[in-house]
Amino acid sequence: MKRIAVLTGGGDAPGLNAVIRAVVKTAIQDCSCEVLGIRDGVDGFLKPDGILPMDTAQVRGILPRGGTILGTANRGNPFAHRLVQGGEEVIIDQSDAVIRRIQDLKLDALVIAGGDGTLNIAQRFYRKGVPVVGIPKTIDNDIGGTDFSFGFDSAVNCAMEAIDRLHTTAESHHRVMVLELMGRHAGFIALHAGVSGGADVILIPEIPFRMEAVVQQIRMRQEKGSPFSILAVSEGATLQGSRPVYASLGDEINAPRLGGIGEMVNTALNNQYGIESRLIVLGHLQRGGSPTAFDRWLGTNFGSSAVHLAAAGRFGHMVSLHGSQIEAVSLEQALAVTKRVDPHSNAVRTARAMGIYFGDEVPA
Amino acid sequence: MKRIAVLTGGGDAPGLNAVIRAVVKTAIQDCSCEVLGIRDGVDGFLKPDGILPMDTAQVRGILPRGGTILGTANRGNPFAHRLVQGGEEVIIDQSDAVIRRIQDLKLDALVIAGGDGTLNIAQRFYRKGVPVVGIPKTIDNDIGGTDFSFGFDSAVNCAMEAIDRLHTTAESHHRVMVLELMGRHAGFIALHAGVSGGADVILIPEIPFRMEAVVQQIRMRQEKGSPFSILAVSEGATLQGSRPVYASLGDEINAPRLGGIGEMVNTALNNQYGIESRLIVLGHLQRGGSPTAFDRWLGTNFGSSAVHLAAAGRFGHMVSLHGSQIEAVSLEQALAVTKRVDPHSNAVRTARAMGIYFGDEVPA
Amino acid sequence: MKRIAVLTGGGDAPGLNAVIRAVVKTAIQDCSCEVLGIRDGVDGFLKPDGILPMDTAQVRGILPRGGTILGTANRGNPFAHRLVQGGEEVIIDQSDAVIRRIQDLKLDALVIAGGDGTLNIAQRFYRKGVPVVGIPKTIDNDIGGTDFSFGFDSAVNCAMEAIDRLHTTAESHHRVMVLELMGRHAGFIALHAGVSGGADVILIPEIPFRMEAVVQQIRMRQEKGSPFSILAVSEGATLQGSRPVYASLGDEINAPRLGGIGEMVNTALNNQYGIESRLIVLGHLQRGGSPTAFDRWLGTNFGSSAVHLAAAGRFGHMVSLHGSQIEAVSLEQALAVTKRVDPHSNAVRTARAMGIYFGDEVPA
Amino acid sequence: MKRIAVLTGGGDAPGLNAVIRAVVKTAIQDCSCEVLGIRDGVDGFLKPDGILPMDTAQVRGILPRGGTILGTANRGNPFAHRLVQGGEEVIIDQSDAVIRRIQDLKLDALVIAGGDGTLNIAQRFYRKGVPVVGIPKTIDNDIGGTDFSFGFDSAVNCAMEAIDRLHTTAESHHRVMVLELMGRHAGFIALHAGVSGGADVILIPEIPFRMEAVVQQIRMRQEKGSPFSILAVSEGATLQGSRPVYASLGDEINAPRLGGIGEMVNTALNNQYGIESRLIVLGHLQRGGSPTAFDRWLGTNFGSSAVHLAAAGRFGHMVSLHGSQIEAVSLEQALAVTKRVDPHSNAVRTARAMGIYFGDEVPA
Repeated sequence: MKRIAVLTGGGDAPGLNAVIRAVVKTAIQDCSCEVLGIRDGVDGFLKPDGILPMDTAQVRGILPRGGTILGTANRGNPFAHRLVQGGEEVIIDQSDAVIRRIQDLKLDALVIAGGDGTLNIAQRFYRKGVPVVGIPKTIDNDIGGTDFSFGFDSAVNCAMEAIDRLHTTAESHHRVMVLELMGRHAGFIALHAGVSGGADVILIPEIPFRMEAVVQQIRMRQEKGSPFSILAVSEGATLQGSRPVYASLGDEINAPRLGGIGEMVNTALNNQYGIESRLIVLGHLQRGGSPTAFDRWLGTNFGSSAVHLAAAGRFGHMVSLHGSQIEAVSLEQALAVTKRVDPHSNAVRTARAMGIYFGDEVPA
Repeated sequence: MKRIAVLTGGGDAPGLNAVIRAVVKTAIQDCSCEVLGIRDGVDGFLKPDGILPMDTAQVRGILPRGGTILGTANRGNPFAHRLVQGGEEVIIDQSDAVIRRIQDLKLDALVIAGGDGTLNIAQRFYRKGVPVVGIPKTIDNDIGGTDFSFGFDSAVNCAMEAIDRLHTTAESHHRVMVLELMGRHAGFIALHAGVSGGADVILIPEIPFRMEAVVQQIRMRQEKGSPFSILAVSEGATLQGSRPVYASLGDEINAPRLGGIGEMVNTALNNQYGIESRLIVLGHLQRGGSPTAFDRWLGTNFGSSAVHLAAAGRFGHMVSLHGSQIEAVSLEQALAVTKRVDPHSNAVRTARAMGIYFGDEVPA
Repeated sequence: MKRIAVLTGGGDAPGLNAVIRAVVKTAIQDCSCEVLGIRDGVDGFLKPDGILPMDTAQVRGILPRGGTILGTANRGNPFAHRLVQGGEEVIIDQSDAVIRRIQDLKLDALVIAGGDGTLNIAQRFYRKGVPVVGIPKTIDNDIGGTDFSFGFDSAVNCAMEAIDRLHTTAESHHRVMVLELMGRHAGFIALHAGVSGGADVILIPEIPFRMEAVVQQIRMRQEKGSPFSILAVSEGATLQGSRPVYASLGDEINAPRLGGIGEMVNTALNNQYGIESRLIVLGHLQRGGSPTAFDRWLGTNFGSSAVHLAAAGRFGHMVSLHGSQIEAVSLEQALAVTKRVDPHSNAVRTARAMGIYFGDEVPA
Repeated sequence: MKRIAVLTGGGDAPGLNAVIRAVVKTAIQDCSCEVLGIRDGVDGFLKPDGILPMDTAQVRGILPRGGTILGTANRGNPFAHRLVQGGEEVIIDQSDAVIRRIQDLKLDALVIAGGDGTLNIAQRFYRKGVPVVGIPKTIDNDIGGTDFSFGFDSAVNCAMEAIDRLHTTAESHHRVMVLELMGRHAGFIALHAGVSGGADVILIPEIPFRMEAVVQQIRMRQEKGSPFSILAVSEGATLQGSRPVYASLGDEINAPRLGGIGEMVNTALNNQYGIESRLIVLGHLQRGGSPTAFDRWLGTNFGSSAVHLAAAGRFGHMVSLHGSQIEAVSLEQALAVTKRVDPHSNAVRTARAMGIYFGDEVPA
């Protein structure tokens, strides 16, 4: 292996810089490789200044920093690139142009760190002959084939600290606080942050809720002498029998937005049920900041192992975490899994044992 | 002095528990006084379980905690108490009932920690003969007669950390981020957090802004190679020639809300100017959490000095910070001042020298 | 199951209060059990005020707090209790007295959260007929049969933040910084914190080091333009061919101490090799503070699952983490494993690829 | 003013990068000046690569970072430079060489950020005709002429968080914890951190202590049911009638060290008085890390105002904080003051009212 490239795609996740640093250092030190950084995701292959030769000097000091020094293009699907031509949006397939560039660059391997969407693109390139190795990246923890990915732990800690902050005010002021968290399809952030922060109600996509049941839990708490409640609400939490609220907000993959389910719950509490509540939408705060130790550790190990995978010629695979070991799993296999919170899992059972309510049944 | 009471009023501010702890400890240790805690602000005087005898055991371990163990009533103005009688809201003056209760309790002093509103009530009670000592409490830093109060430093650090978090994502994703912060009448939080976090635009009530000027600054930065910008926006920031947006959101004193100026700016950027931006409303997160060292220090010194003021019979005064000294100032004098950001101050000049833009003039 | 008791033993670990809270809440809510808290470890059974009836009120608000509300006795081995009688120390077996007390209390189950030492005691009680369920607790990550335990993640984050802090000073002042971390027998804290903090040298018990090799690495870095280095040193790091330094410091299990290997390395650098360096011994700071989300999550799940294990009559087992699942493993099996850093593991290989040096060979 | 230079001297202090950034940005934006950065303190003037032309690109992203991008030489006194010549140490005056270099560079102003020692050097250069403006920098808060300087707030928060961490362990394990903090001549860090962290004993240089009195306080607390105590000890704390312990440790200005007063107190407690205690020496951790909002704010305002002072030709002055205003004070005047904790101040009185003990008298 003489030349390897690395790119990051999709939304921000703490730990991306650890990945980049590990790829660069491992490629140079263990494989005596040349390393190229691709700017702003796959798009970089088609930009004049999109290719950046990298050495260790460029990755110095980036380990504790959020974001990605390579940048990322959120909507960069080269197989269906949106372009405005003559006033109209057209969708064109740029994948062959990308592949030609990869061939011109004489890349022996391409490391792609990204979420579901980006890894699907990686898989399609692999099928067309590009020597791809994947690195799963998701703050939502919704990628299969790995116990966890980097970004999730930082996001959960950020969300938990927000709950910690809201707790004292909620108690002092007898308030209900609605905290909307990330998670369109998987409720792991709300579940983990809710349990570790001590939320009173957790609403997640996997367990559709009824508004009346939520209200009853809040009132029951009031009657028992706790005139405050904290609700941790996934962006994708859904009323029983309804479609997800975020679906009407456009396909922005990158953040919960005002006007989402949190606002709906908050408005209903205040206007419909006469319960004074406040809404906080944590949004992008969950994606930023210095990564936790776990995310730096995992990002570093993922990046380093991805280079070793590439050196061993195991393309079409992504690195993954099993227990405390880094392993490899085929992209095909990993992408076939839809990872969601299991409503019957021990984790949900534990949450219920803590007195946390999911809005699916009327409290006893 | 044989018996002293303490109460906390208004919105949450980190450091209130330090105040309560210091009042209790100083009263017992330095004055051998009995101490009563009044629950939920002035309202506590009229509630059956509103009076709580306190000793040092009750204030153990509360120094690092946000909120107030005594609770607070946000709308508790006893001179104009809102009551629903026969389906209609009536406003009655309950101040005499409060004063009778104070006399029955044989209070030698009443320490009131609160913001503008609460201190005005304190002043009215003082005029009616109640032996009141005030403690200024404001996260907005808008109370006169003191350099700073507790709560402000914690709020600014919380807001600055949010800017730190947004920075990496903004840079990696070439995004504009709109961060709405507290401050209806005074822009100190946005100014201090914006300067210490390195915001690109700061919008505050004291410097009305034009949307076109903000847009021009964002575009100028894009042209100079910084395709991202962070806007720190006070809740009370106001368009030139308009009324504040929050004014139409009701008189909730306790939090910025969705639907405020932040959302207006964010919507205008996206829809009107085609600049992709994201909104974060920090809201109550600024009021919670463990207080900073400065706020614990100041709260402790304010609480302790308030008891000494009371012991010296200096009623109608509040404690205040001048430089690094705790002093006393009459409530009348303090309340006469309207503390706002001076647009011509060195602080604003420094911010401009950092390249920060206030939206009041078109960038050169 | 009608009555269950819980106790915590050994050194402090962030997450113990999450365990206690989860045991109490689960026992009451899922099993309608009575719960007793045993104070100061097993010793509590023999103290007049050592047994505390518990309900949910007592565990309110303790989730974010470090330490253990039940207290713990560090040296409380009831099978070999040290006592001073007539001026001399005698060692007596108090286990039968403990068992009698357990029988008098009519305990149906006893949940014991502790490290290696405490779990060994738990196992001995189980063999003598006590219905014991164990919960592994170790900040060092040296207990077998589980991927991780609570406390480790908080300790690693604390250590990593210390490295982050030292980095800027080391760089600005061209300094060598020696940071001694916990870990007598297992180097996981130093390894994980060193990798995630970006240390330059990591010294752990599992890889004996040579002082000359460490010096050579520091000098090589100086020559390459990095006139600073950060050394993350486990308390149990050992010179090749020597005994561990801590062994001569007494059998205090609870903290690294001055006079340990960190001081030895620091002194050698300054006096023997003329390399100016500074020593920081992080000590008990690693054991305190608010637990991370992971440790609160794991502590909660461990506590809750331990009650379910007890309800199912699976005594002599401890809860454990495999991947993201909570399982059960027999105490015998878990205690048979000696968990250490594997010098040939991927994790160590990754660290070396990052340019981190373990002092076992002369740098190329 | 056409060309201005900036340098940083002495020990590390969070906020130095804010100062550098503000000097560069203000000089360029407000004065259209050229800016030079001097590397490693005054020494940089005599080094081949010691002068660095600076623009805004170089100060991008440094605001949240500790340390100083310019580096600093701890012992760089050009009026008495230590040099080894022919195996012997000689002390030579290099100040004229520095001045010649300053003249060659055609500097119109030189901004020097430093502590007592560095500002004294600044003052001497000013007397010899160099157009110097000073910026006070001290984590110890021991520079006169200003209410506070940057670095102190970050150090106090770091120390307070350490006390927070120790609290839970101390309580759970019935332990005495000795925390040695910075402060050779002034005890402000220990006083502020001790009060805001809730220490039980504070030992500072300004109030010499007796060991017996400290022990009595610890025992009194044990008898009253608090079998733990936390001692916040300044590096310069001194036994009544003795010389400071640090005086025998050499003139390292940069850190408390093992072997200092903390170790002495800890050893005495354990060996002499049979009180089990643990020592933590916080050391350089206090000097590192991301600056607090206050330190970034003050550093930015100091840096910007220093440039304005220079532009106004007010040399021989330093910037200073009075209340919430930035002002100027002559170096001579500022250096004439010896700022120490006043044992009779309100601040100490407040600490005593909190039950904190200074070891100067036997507790009642």
